[in-house]
Amino acid sequence: METEFNLDPRLANDCHLVGDLDLCRVLLMDDSRFPWLILVPRCHGLRELADLDRRQQHRLLEEIDCARLALRVFGEFDKLNVAALGNVVAQLHVHVIARRIGDAAWPAPVWNHGNSIPYSDRDDVLEGLRYALQIG
Amino acid sequence: METEFNLDPRLANDCHLVGDLDLCRVLLMDDSRFPWLILVPRCHGLRELADLDRRQQHRLLEEIDCARLALRVFGEFDKLNVAALGNVVAQLHVHVIARRIGDAAWPAPVWNHGNSIPYSDRDDVLEGLRYALQIG
Repeated sequence: METEFNLDPRLANDCHLVGDLDLCRVLLMDDSRFPWLILVPRCHGLRELADLDRRQQHRLLEEIDCARLALRVFGEFDKLNVAALGNVVAQLHVHVIARRIGDAAWPAPVWNHGNSIPYSDRDDVLEGLRYALQIG
Repeated sequence: METEFNLDPRLANDCHLVGDLDLCRVLLMDDSRFPWLILVPRCHGLRELADLDRRQQHRLLEEIDCARLALRVFGEFDKLNVAALGNVVAQLHVHVIARRIGDAAWPAPVWNHGNSIPYSDRDDVLEGLRYALQIG
């Protein structure tokens, strides 16, 4: 599945690598204001959800749910935001974002909202996420 | 499935009713700047994707794809935006939005972007969408 897969450079730059699930590479957006994972199906040339076959789409749903559960390492949240946009980064990727009432952007979407605040405790956060996702 | 289902009043106010698919009520956002459908699973009390059982989640994926194909009645588009946010309207609903390079919000997300422009040709648009979705 990984043949020719290359992570978009902008995603690589904005995020920390968590690890790989069966279908997706899991990234942590480096913005401590929002618990925010990004799932990138590890196949070459994908742009739309419709580019995944049915089996892959079902697997993606399962991995979105894995991401939801893993986000609990950040504590309780009030709403999950799940989105495949791709207007800026064309490579298919799915945002899975834990929102809390009163967070920096609430109730607006998180995109283009002010400046990100990088994690100061990155290693601990990544370790917790990998444990929750049973990665590595 | 429809027992006790009531459409959120804000969705009802902001959108036109297209009709019902097996799982979802299909709405057209009354903003002619963006071809924008909203799918609302017709079950009581849903908030998150995870509140759907696996069969319903798979059906939702199929209906997202139906929505994608129906959006072609508006002409070609460059990117599909698919999102379940729900920060303002808690009732589970999925946005399926056809984006064109250079549209009113491009490349930003459409939410909270300026003022909507209601359809002047609503009946024709709804008829085209119902035909494409094989509704009614």
